[in-house]
Parts: sequence; C-alpha cells; structure tokens
Amino acid sequence: MAVFDKKNIIKKSENFSEWYTNVILKSELADYAPVKGCMVIRPYGFALWESIQSFLDKLIKEKGVKNAYFPIFIPEKFLQLEKEHVKGFAPNLAVVTIAGGEELKEKLIVRPTSETVMYAMYKKWTQSWRDLPILINQWNNVVRWEKRTYLFIRTSEFLWQEGHCVHTTHKENLEMVNWALGAYEKTYNDLMALYGIPGVKSEAEKFPGGNQTLSYEILMPDGKALQSCTSHDLGQNFAKAFDWTVLDKNGQKLYPWQNSWGLSTRSIGGLVMAHGDDQGLVLPPAIAPVQIVIVPITQNPAIMKFCADLQKDLKMENLRVEVDVREEKSAGWKFNEWELKGVPIRLEIGSKEIDSGELTVFRRDEKSKSKIPPPAGGLNVKKIIKDLLEEIQINMFKRHKKFTEENTHDVSSYNEFKEIMETKRGFIRAFWCEGPDCERKIKEETKASTRVLPQGAKEEKGTCIYCQKPASNRWFFAQAY
Amino acid sequence: MAVFDKKNIIKKSENFSEWYTNVILKSELADYAPVKGCMVIRPYGFALWESIQSFLDKLIKEKGVKNAYFPIFIPEKFLQLEKEHVKGFAPNLAVVTIAGGEELKEKLIVRPTSETVMYAMYKKWTQSWRDLPILINQWNNVVRWEKRTYLFIRTSEFLWQEGHCVHTTHKENLEMVNWALGAYEKTYNDLMALYGIPGVKSEAEKFPGGNQTLSYEILMPDGKALQSCTSHDLGQNFAKAFDWTVLDKNGQKLYPWQNSWGLSTRSIGGLVMAHGDDQGLVLPPAIAPVQIVIVPITQNPAIMKFCADLQKDLKMENLRVEVDVREEKSAGWKFNEWELKGVPIRLEIGSKEIDSGELTVFRRDEKSKSKIPPPAGGLNVKKIIKDLLEEIQINMFKRHKKFTEENTHDVSSYNEFKEIMETKRGFIRAFWCEGPDCERKIKEETKASTRVLPQGAKEEKGTCIYCQKPASNRWFFAQAY
Repeated sequence: MAVFDKKNIIKKSENFSEWYTNVILKSELADYAPVKGCMVIRPYGFALWESIQSFLDKLIKEKGVKNAYFPIFIPEKFLQLEKEHVKGFAPNLAVVTIAGGEELKEKLIVRPTSETVMYAMYKKWTQSWRDLPILINQWNNVVRWEKRTYLFIRTSEFLWQEGHCVHTTHKENLEMVNWALGAYEKTYNDLMALYGIPGVKSEAEKFPGGNQTLSYEILMPDGKALQSCTSHDLGQNFAKAFDWTVLDKNGQKLYPWQNSWGLSTRSIGGLVMAHGDDQGLVLPPAIAPVQIVIVPITQNPAIMKFCADLQKDLKMENLRVEVDVREEKSAGWKFNEWELKGVPIRLEIGSKEIDSGELTVFRRDEKSKSKIPPPAGGLNVKKIIKDLLEEIQINMFKRHKKFTEENTHDVSSYNEFKEIMETKRGFIRAFWCEGPDCERKIKEETKASTRVLPQGAKEEKGTCIYCQKPASNRWFFAQAY
Repeated sequence: MAVFDKKNIIKKSENFSEWYTNVILKSELADYAPVKGCMVIRPYGFALWESIQSFLDKLIKEKGVKNAYFPIFIPEKFLQLEKEHVKGFAPNLAVVTIAGGEELKEKLIVRPTSETVMYAMYKKWTQSWRDLPILINQWNNVVRWEKRTYLFIRTSEFLWQEGHCVHTTHKENLEMVNWALGAYEKTYNDLMALYGIPGVKSEAEKFPGGNQTLSYEILMPDGKALQSCTSHDLGQNFAKAFDWTVLDKNGQKLYPWQNSWGLSTRSIGGLVMAHGDDQGLVLPPAIAPVQIVIVPITQNPAIMKFCADLQKDLKMENLRVEVDVREEKSAGWKFNEWELKGVPIRLEIGSKEIDSGELTVFRRDEKSKSKIPPPAGGLNVKKIIKDLLEEIQINMFKRHKKFTEENTHDVSSYNEFKEIMETKRGFIRAFWCEGPDCERKIKEETKASTRVLPQGAKEEKGTCIYCQKPASNRWFFAQAY
C-alpha cells in the first residue's frame, strides 16, 4: 500500500516560496505548461475559478452589466493610439506575425487587456447619450509575457474578467469604479475569507492610460502584498485617443467616460498562500469544491452503506460531499490527501461510530477533532455540519484579518521603515508627500512600493517618511508580488 | 419619433446570405471585429452562448467530466508529432514569433485545438491504469485562420468547448464518443429546437489524426448542411505519437485510448439560419435571453403599474421577462424591434386590456395574435404563458424536423443527384461504394460532400450512385457550410 509522500511537502515556515509551489503541484491545482511562463489549471484548481466566476458573475449581472466577447487579437495600431497605454504594455506583448501561412501585413497583438479593441467597437455603436451607458464585461484569457513567472500569481497567460463600462458623466463613471471594487471586496471576504485594504493607487502605480486606479491589497503570510484586483477610472482619455464623441441632450459633442476593472486567476494564488499550512491547502467552505469528505475507516458493507446514506443526507442540503471509496488506499493515506487538498470537514466513519452513534469530525482550519453526539445521521448531524461550515468560514476570515492587522505597522521614522522591510515586512502605514521621487527612492532602498491610500482615509497633518516635507495622507506601503 | 428601419432588412427568400448577415448585425447578436475574419459577440448574442454553455456544461458535469484550462500557446514541435494532425491544421495556423520584445527561439502556435498540449500533460500525470480514465473538458477560444469568413459559421477565432477523455479500452472510448454526440443532439433538440442527422463521417471528412468522427448534420433553409459539432475516436494515435504508455493491471505497457469532442459558437449561426424569418430572429423559448416582452401601448401610470406587476408575477415563475419602458419609442416601433430580436411572446398592454381583463398575446413563431381571457394577471395568465412557451418550443422543433424530412431526397440516379444539387439542394440519401474517388468526383461535380452515414443505419444491397459498383450503405450527401 502506497505511503503518503508527506516528506516532500516543504514546511511553510522554512521556505514559503517552495512550499507554495509544492502545495499547488501536489494538491493538483495546477501544473507547469510546456510553454515557458504558462500554466495548466487542473480540474481541482479550475473548480476554484468556477466558484469565483459564479459568485462574481452574479454580482456583475445584478448590476446590469452584460457579458460579451471581443477578439483575442488587437491590431498593432489600435494599441498605439493611447500613448501611456502602449508604453505600459509594450514590453510584455506577444505578437502574431504569421497567419494562414502568410506573413501578416499588420502584426496582431495577443490582447494584454481589451480597452482599445472594445472602444473601437463602442465608438461604432454609439451616436448619442441615449446609447449610453454601455455596461459590458467579458471573461477571457489575456497574455502578458513575463520573464519571471510564479504559478497563479504571475503567468504569461492568465484568465480574468474585464469589465468595460461607458457613461455620460464622470460621476456615474466613478460610481461604477467604486461599485466594482466593492464587488471584488465582497468576493474576497465572503467567498475566499480574505481581508484586505481597499484604496487608491499612486500615480506611478496606476493603470497605463487611466486617471485613477483602485485596488484591493491583501497581505500574504511572508509579509508581501498582493494586488488582488484593480478598478480604473479611465476618464475620457481613450475617447479622446479614439476621437470618439456622442451627442449629449443638448446636441453638443461629448467625449464619453470609461472605466475598466478586472479580477484574475491570481486570486487563487492569494487564497492558497494566505490560508495554507504545512499539511497543504486550507480552503474556506464557501469556495471549496469538496466541503465535506467522508472517509470509511474500513470497507465493510455496513460502514459503506452508512457513508453513502450520510452523503445522500448532506447532499440534500446542497452541500458538496464526497465519500472516499478507494480500496487501494488506507484511511490514514486518505486523511493526509484530503488535508493536502484543504477540504474543510472530514467525517471518519468506523464501526465504533456506527455502534455508538457518535461521529468524529475533523476540521481542517484548526486541525482539531470533535464529536457529534448521537444519533449519527438525521437532522442533528446536518444542522451541526452546516453550522460548522459557517463557523469555519468566519474563523478563517477573522484569522486573516487579525494577521493583517497584527502585521500593519504605523511608522514615523524612515529607519524603522527600513528595519521592518528588512526583517518582518508586512504593511507599513506612513505619511508620504506624494512626490514621485520619494516613492521611487523608497522602493529602490527597501523594495517597498506604495500600495494604496485607503478608501475613506481622513486628511491628517504629518511629514513625509522620506523627505520630511509636509504630508497630509498616510499611505500603505509594502513589498509586493 | 424614429421610424423602425424595416426597409433595410433583406428578405430571407430573396437573398438568404445577405438576410443572415443583416439579421445578425441588426438584432445586435454580433458585429465584425477590426481584425479580419474575427467577430465581436455582442451581449444579446453572448447570452445565447451562455445558455448553450449552461445547458451543455450540466450534461458534461453529470457525466463526471471536469473542466480545466490549458494554455493557448502550443509549441510548434508538439503539433508536428502527429503527422495527419499537423497536415490538417497547418494551412490555418496563427503563429506568435515575437514575445516580450524578443524573437522567440521556438515559434508558438495559437491553439487551433488542444489535443497535443493536453496529451503532453496527460502523459506526465499518468503511470498506471489507476490514473485513468481522465475526463477533462475546457471552454475556450481557438484560432483557425480562414480566408473566407461568415459570422458565427466560420470565423478565424471562435469559442467552443473541447472534451478530451482518455480510457484503458477502445470500448470505453467509443462509449464516450457516442455519449458526447448524444449530449450535443440533446442540446440541439431540447434547447435550440433543431433537428439533425447523427452519424459517422467518411475517411476524407474525418478529423485529422483521428480514427473515426461522429457528427450531427443540420439542414439549413438554403438546402446546405451545417456540421454542427463533432466527436472523435482518436484511437491510440496520439498516445503512440507521444510515446505515452501506462501500466495495465498485469503490469504490461498499454497505449491509452483518446477521444475529443467539440461544439462551438457556430451553433448560434445554425440557430439564426434555421428559425429566422423576414422580420428577423425567431428564438426558441428555452434559449431566448428574453422569453416574454411586455409592451405598454401608452405610458399612463395605470398601464405602467399593470405591466410591472405582470412582470413580477411572471418572474416568480422563473421566466425571463422584460417591460419595454422606453418613452422615446412608439409601441409599433417596439413591436418591430422585439420581433427582430426574436422574443417568443409579446404581451401588449393598453387601457383596453386593463378594462376588459383580456390580454393580447403575440407569438413570434407563428406571427399570430390571440387573447387570454380574464382575469388579466394571476394564476390564469401564468399557466397559459408557460404552456404557450412549451408549445412554441415543440412547434419550432417539429417545424424544423418537417422541413428536414421534406428536403431529404432518396436518390438512385446520378442525373437526379446533380439536378437536385443544381436546383433545390437539401440532403440526398444515396448508395455510395465508400471509395474516395467517387466521393471526390461527386464533390467536384456537384459541390455536395458526404455528410454522414446515419447512426444505426442497416446494411442494404445497392449500387454506388457514381460508379454503379456494389454498395451496402446509404450515405447522406449535401453541400455544406
């Protein structure tokens, strides 16, 4: 009988980066593709993405935004219309030069993002204010060629959704930009049990071609921040670049206002990093493809029947339950494998459980066992299991929030700033004058960049952590993925 | 007030091809992309694709097949491993030669289909029979560069699902190939109200690199056939090309058996062609993004309230209902637009309806009006509407089946064959000796190719329609998209 290959799982505390890759490969979330920098998302990992899609798509549709599909290829000249935009993306483009056996007259860019091709169409579809707003989203794949890649976190191809809405006023535009960030925050909090800091990006860190970028920054266990999504106020920049106007109610020409917002498969990387432990994945119940695994201790018919009945009962409550019926694996091997796969609850069923009517429950988040009093099965068990799943979900979110708060440092001297970044890292809250020079030097000297100015932050009086000049806002800094 | 621009809709009977393009553009299903041969699927068209996805994905998951994601790029050398495969796809490839600002050492093919990149991974993941079957599907975009394109029917990029399963025996493999065709047939029949002929492709028409291809052939109103999906028994061909073996139960090396099966956005083209009429789209209720539109005849508050209440009632029955509240358009304009959009049922609400309690119902498939007796609203209306939607769905399928049967010709002389293909077209059932020469010559002389040998066809005695030699099967022939 195969022994579960535990030795090869590197400890999270010993080598975080290797642990991360290890867990993803061994839990079969993903694998390296034969094309450098690309990944294969395996069924267990893709089920996580399907959960995210289903949760977020519902919010998107409730907002009245509809899905569509725009082509993967963008004519090179389109990308060049918005100067900042092309500058930002040029180093990472993949280019098709041959198609149908012939050299193309005009090269085609594999989309790194779809602003340009979408706005070219929007321009064609709109004449007056009556044709606005346009509320469109698409779920697709994009390519940004990367030298150094990291499973889920940074890959040359990734999956995401990109919302692209257009309005007649800046106010409506901002409302949508904020709505999108709120939808992302809800997805992270309620589905993925991840806490983060919503806020505004600095000029240097914002989207190329946009006016303002919002982001939700999530702290990882190694003290680095993950930019987990973005929502951009693009102003009228692309409308002007495309010479796109519509007639307003008074018959005057108006440049429409655009916004775009995206959340990608990178989110799964954050989920793995933040919650996982030395035994592997730890999945929040709301997103877990399998919420409960029932493991028969031995394979006798009475036990197998009990397991099947229990599964049926729990499935009727819309819970995602599996019974591990494999004959060739021991119960211990199965325990380890399902722990690696991060399944929130394990029920261990042996003859003792059947005789006593008392069930043994293992919860993955706390790695603790408890008993469900008799009768084993029926209403009692269903209610206790459902409550426990909810408790685990809340516990995991609270734990991550606590971790983030404990690793957020209010800092007022640059020496302290440097020391923190050299040792424990984490978020630093510090005054910054908002000058690009200070921002650049801090990054050069500490690898920490500005992450966000938190939403709703109140102006205060202070001095810049770097240049000591007056500053009125405390920004979040961190080293970032 | 704008007059609905009806004049520009070309009649289906006058110019089928222009009518088709016209209807797609005007009903806003899709538009031409700025990249030659590519299309933009607009929200109304994408909603159809979402319906197809949701219907088919459910069947796929019930079969135990799980979704995953493989990279869009395939190393050139992978595609070359299977000789027939590369020969079949070479003329239509799009090739990335530059990425991240550098000329690539190895060119990357934008996937035309994913057999090669998937099997390379499958090989890595499997050691023994215990690792099989592999049951994986992916929903994605693929690129096959085309000189002549046609909205939905043939575009250089299209969306599809591609299932790729692997088994230890040929029997299991064939079972899956047949299952997939059955799932497609169910999707066409029950969701899209389209009838077709399931069967086996000839050697010349099968998938490059496969052993046998099944297809569902659907007859279009112009008498041409649409190959609406395919399901391939790939045998062990790719396993051998990739030198991929697993150990069987006796510890012997075994080449795994593969199958692949796909259904694409082409299906939407078939849906539009088969059901549409001079007024535009006609959508079967099961797939229609809007099943019922409520049009207030005038915009007085009592009427608007009545419409809103009725919408609420119908929504509670899980029906997809919209009220057209636009003030700037006349009721007549709205009637025309919703007819163009193919909405199955229209309810017209004026003060007469409110006073009498009798509702006016327009059904799109028959272009006929009827009355729902009082009381207007409540249980009565809900039941009648639901029954009517079912009736429309069945009626549309029956109509298409009848059309197909009426345009299927049993032919025993080649002169008759030619005459039919020169005039009315349609399906021809005729004996064929299964020799590639006859098949090629028939195609050269009549533009008709073999479509399928129908599933379950019994061997008969006959003579080949072309060479008069003995033949034992009646094949379906047609000109094809």
